[in-house]
Amino acid sequence: MNEKNALYPWEGLTVLRTHDLGALTAADIGERVTLAGWVSRRRDHGGVAFVDLRDSTGVSQVVIRDEADFAHLRNEFVLQVEGTVERRPEGNENPALPSGEIEVVAERVVVLNKAAALPFQVDEHVEVGEEARLKHRYLDLRRPNMSRNIRLRSQVNKAAREVLEAEDFVEIETPTLTLSTPGGARDFIVPSRLSPGNWYGLPQSPQLFKQLLQVGGFEKYYQIARCYRDEDFRADRQPEFTQLDIEASFVEQEDVIALAERILVNVWKTIGVEIETPFQRLTYAEAMDKYGSDKPDLRFGLELTEMTGYFKDTTFRVFQADYTGAVVMPGGASQPRRTLDGWQEFAKQRGHKGLAYVLIQEDGQLTGPVAKNLSDAEKDGLAAFVGAEPGDCVFFAAGERDAARELLGAARVEIARRTGLIKEGEYAFAWVVDFPMFESAAAATAAGDVAVGQGAWTALHHAFTSPKPELLGTFHEDPQNALAQAYDVVCNGSEIGGGSIRIHDREVQQRVFEVMGLSEEDQQRNFGFLLEGFKYGAPPHGGIAFGWDRIMSILVGSESIRDVIAFPKAGAFDPLTGAPAAITAQQRKEAGIDAKPQGAKADAKRADGAEGDAAEAALPQTAEGAKA
Amino acid sequence: MNEKNALYPWEGLTVLRTHDLGALTAADIGERVTLAGWVSRRRDHGGVAFVDLRDSTGVSQVVIRDEADFAHLRNEFVLQVEGTVERRPEGNENPALPSGEIEVVAERVVVLNKAAALPFQVDEHVEVGEEARLKHRYLDLRRPNMSRNIRLRSQVNKAAREVLEAEDFVEIETPTLTLSTPGGARDFIVPSRLSPGNWYGLPQSPQLFKQLLQVGGFEKYYQIARCYRDEDFRADRQPEFTQLDIEASFVEQEDVIALAERILVNVWKTIGVEIETPFQRLTYAEAMDKYGSDKPDLRFGLELTEMTGYFKDTTFRVFQADYTGAVVMPGGASQPRRTLDGWQEFAKQRGHKGLAYVLIQEDGQLTGPVAKNLSDAEKDGLAAFVGAEPGDCVFFAAGERDAARELLGAARVEIARRTGLIKEGEYAFAWVVDFPMFESAAAATAAGDVAVGQGAWTALHHAFTSPKPELLGTFHEDPQNALAQAYDVVCNGSEIGGGSIRIHDREVQQRVFEVMGLSEEDQQRNFGFLLEGFKYGAPPHGGIAFGWDRIMSILVGSESIRDVIAFPKAGAFDPLTGAPAAITAQQRKEAGIDAKPQGAKADAKRADGAEGDAAEAALPQTAEGAKA
Repeated sequence: MNEKNALYPWEGLTVLRTHDLGALTAADIGERVTLAGWVSRRRDHGGVAFVDLRDSTGVSQVVIRDEADFAHLRNEFVLQVEGTVERRPEGNENPALPSGEIEVVAERVVVLNKAAALPFQVDEHVEVGEEARLKHRYLDLRRPNMSRNIRLRSQVNKAAREVLEAEDFVEIETPTLTLSTPGGARDFIVPSRLSPGNWYGLPQSPQLFKQLLQVGGFEKYYQIARCYRDEDFRADRQPEFTQLDIEASFVEQEDVIALAERILVNVWKTIGVEIETPFQRLTYAEAMDKYGSDKPDLRFGLELTEMTGYFKDTTFRVFQADYTGAVVMPGGASQPRRTLDGWQEFAKQRGHKGLAYVLIQEDGQLTGPVAKNLSDAEKDGLAAFVGAEPGDCVFFAAGERDAARELLGAARVEIARRTGLIKEGEYAFAWVVDFPMFESAAAATAAGDVAVGQGAWTALHHAFTSPKPELLGTFHEDPQNALAQAYDVVCNGSEIGGGSIRIHDREVQQRVFEVMGLSEEDQQRNFGFLLEGFKYGAPPHGGIAFGWDRIMSILVGSESIRDVIAFPKAGAFDPLTGAPAAITAQQRKEAGIDAKPQGAKADAKRADGAEGDAAEAALPQTAEGAKA
Repeated sequence: MNEKNALYPWEGLTVLRTHDLGALTAADIGERVTLAGWVSRRRDHGGVAFVDLRDSTGVSQVVIRDEADFAHLRNEFVLQVEGTVERRPEGNENPALPSGEIEVVAERVVVLNKAAALPFQVDEHVEVGEEARLKHRYLDLRRPNMSRNIRLRSQVNKAAREVLEAEDFVEIETPTLTLSTPGGARDFIVPSRLSPGNWYGLPQSPQLFKQLLQVGGFEKYYQIARCYRDEDFRADRQPEFTQLDIEASFVEQEDVIALAERILVNVWKTIGVEIETPFQRLTYAEAMDKYGSDKPDLRFGLELTEMTGYFKDTTFRVFQADYTGAVVMPGGASQPRRTLDGWQEFAKQRGHKGLAYVLIQEDGQLTGPVAKNLSDAEKDGLAAFVGAEPGDCVFFAAGERDAARELLGAARVEIARRTGLIKEGEYAFAWVVDFPMFESAAAATAAGDVAVGQGAWTALHHAFTSPKPELLGTFHEDPQNALAQAYDVVCNGSEIGGGSIRIHDREVQQRVFEVMGLSEEDQQRNFGFLLEGFKYGAPPHGGIAFGWDRIMSILVGSESIRDVIAFPKAGAFDPLTGAPAAITAQQRKEAGIDAKPQGAKADAKRADGAEGDAAEAALPQTAEGAKA
């Protein structure tokens, strides 16, 4: 082994490598090469070692004949190897590898860096918890799956940009230290040292800025944008996440939908899948009726059947409800009692009392605890009404319409999973349209969102969503039934994007704020700059945002978005760096966290002293304007 | 005028426009078109109005014959126009416009939105302060210059990505809610509601993450990354800014430099300029000697001449200094007394006593207050020694070497400005290499940076910069003279990028931390995860980061980076939104700002309860590991 300088052992070499490991083939036989990479595996055969050397392009086999050069090698050592490419002895080829016909016979082996005993092995088989994976993320990222995921993400960015650039969309960065404004979740806030006691907010999306860019004449905008939401962590959410953010002027809903489909087609090509457009369309009402979800998984049928009418005269108290519905589990009649009890647990975890069911025996008899509560007439017509066959199980939910449909929708997905209706590599896209403009503030709060405003109603998408054109003059009179020009795109049961045609009229925007119970003062404080912008020739506009992490997780076939983010957090915590962490007393003092906010005017002036005239002059009027 | 519905007047139309305004030419004559855009200008001629209608693609002239349709139009109204393309009457063509041969005769004019009286006109002539421009940024962005700048930025992103993608660089996003670690400036910090009393830091650069990506086997990484520095605002800095961030494994300084040049070549092509490579090279020592700056403007000569030796026996007390140097102002002998006094002011503003000078008269006589203090021998040889001609002025600085050279360097640039040596559209690139590894902590603090560590020395670039290979074993013994494998690229006197080969050896990294006076505990708390990563086969690596805002400002020929950022701040303050602003008591309470930080372990556990097993399991060990 040549180790002239333990620290920079390659000193004197002019290049660290001449060839990529994944690029070597039989065409290179006879070439002298210099390679660099990690020891992926080593096998010793009587004084000779065969090392699988790995770099980002692939693997080649290196033959080391000098025991002094290989005896001390461990997995993940970083080597530089000079040698000659030779044909592998007959019978030793590996057709699974591009380099499978050759091996590199080493003449010089330099250890560029050593590796201590690994906390886990770098291979496909993950046998450690996410704990260790995230703490030693740099090792986790070397595993073939993770490496592929992160590399694919780069390709996906490129695929989206190709479409957008071809259509003259302009990539524009929007600020992330901005005004904290109420959105669907809490804002992360950042103290301003130079304006002590005042805070920036990290944006939940570039929404207001992309709309102002439309007012500014950037008719086609896009950005792969970092966004922030300080949420109570639900599974598979991250405090910071990424969206592909798009906005355009002089467009209608159909324009945005068609553009979104062109982007998704190109994105899915990165995994070799041709998706068909146009996607099917469902109204929100249809989606809830048929699938109990506004993001239905359409890889399978199993539509819900509303039975409120069917049971309108029932004597069974449970089905005397606002809503009764059913979903069929094919072949479910043979589920053992324990499994059927499990379904009750499934319902309880979702906040319901249970999940009623009848089993349709092969002879057509209905059994199970519910059956005896039904009249003969109810039993006789039931299977036909819900489309069930002998051997199936029919699940029922009854109660408040939305809640009951949601339970059936969840059961529907679980049935599909258990009965193998979900095929790997299948992608079912759809647009859900005609969303309600508003939901009750109570429902939003119950779902863990922050209801904006003090009203009984809050925006279902967000406050900038336009009502349907025919409702522009009247939506505020009947908020419950007002429909929006909003559209979500779903894939395999996940919402992967959502958007709307926006309000561009100041008066309409103010009426929406009023429905939401935002006082004139709150409107001005939070959205005054948008309303001001709408005064000066705001064009009609609309857009969409894609959940980039979610799309990636579908493309790679992972349940978790953590598998498509290089350095994700486990909830709020980052196991790699230990963030968040305590700050020093000096940091706290300097950040002005505990200062009483003075007028932004005075503070900003002081802070900007060095900026010269422009900034000086900028402050008095703006501070008044924006904070009046 | 057709205004059926005051809110959505275009209801019933299926498309908002059929043609772009900039795309209409004589080839379209006879076409029926629907157009949309802003009223840029209107001229009335006896019952007919000529409206310049503008969209993002350009301008076309619209002829409106019905006074009811145009009488009320003001600039920046948003119109939709249906009409027919006709040839302009002979003599009325405008060869400056692509649409200059045609006009659109309107048959239907719909006002899509009105515009109130504008705070300033939307044209090339900026007659308002930056105050109004930033507050009404959406109007400012409609001005042709600003529109061009922001659109060019998108092209520049694309140009950089083209090179990087062609070379298989992988675009990877790194976190922005991370651990606050000491850098060259203060971190912005973000309270964690779910781990009350603990804080995230916003990164000053993705430095540690891009190095860990190299440890993770992503041998070619890039990102157009948002970065944050909580600085005392200097002119033309922003609290958030953008860099093109690049890192690669198994590379040496020459590889990074060549890649950077390929990127800059492609970037400059966006403005139609072919730049020549390779760029010239200067060592840091040469740059300081010849130009008094580590970012010299090389569009002109005017090199400094060191005269310490020349004046070694002088009786003139001022020149009996550690360092005496000179710079020549061609033709400067004819400057009036008042101008020469102005140069004293120039020096004083930079913290110096003044700027000594002699004037070389046409007859070769030296005049001015300094001349009489010089011996005949000193006077006789002076012009030849500094390369001055009759009619020139020679400026001198004497004193501490760095300070005196810096003053001469500043004078040099000012001389070039005043004597017209700086030509528009000229670009002089250079690499400055062989930087010192360390600077004195006192100097860093004096320059407004935050010195990391408690030592007498702090890193000039940053703590992760490798010493030159021959110094690896010894740099800590003589920090003052240790040179780094660091390189800056400068253009026209601005540093537009900087990078280095990094340390990848744990022991070397720890020795650098020791020179900087970072205790073992501080090393672990701030950089423990990097040191841990270096245990497991970290490859040799290096990279560069380009100041994207600065590059853009050079490309568009603007002095201010605010002209290339869609929504910049004026110092700390955003005149558009009013950020930063006070937060509510509830926000403060919820954010956990005033909570005593408990063990991150306990908090994180609570916070992540909803995440399920993986996150639960992740926390105990990681919290201990990272915070031990």
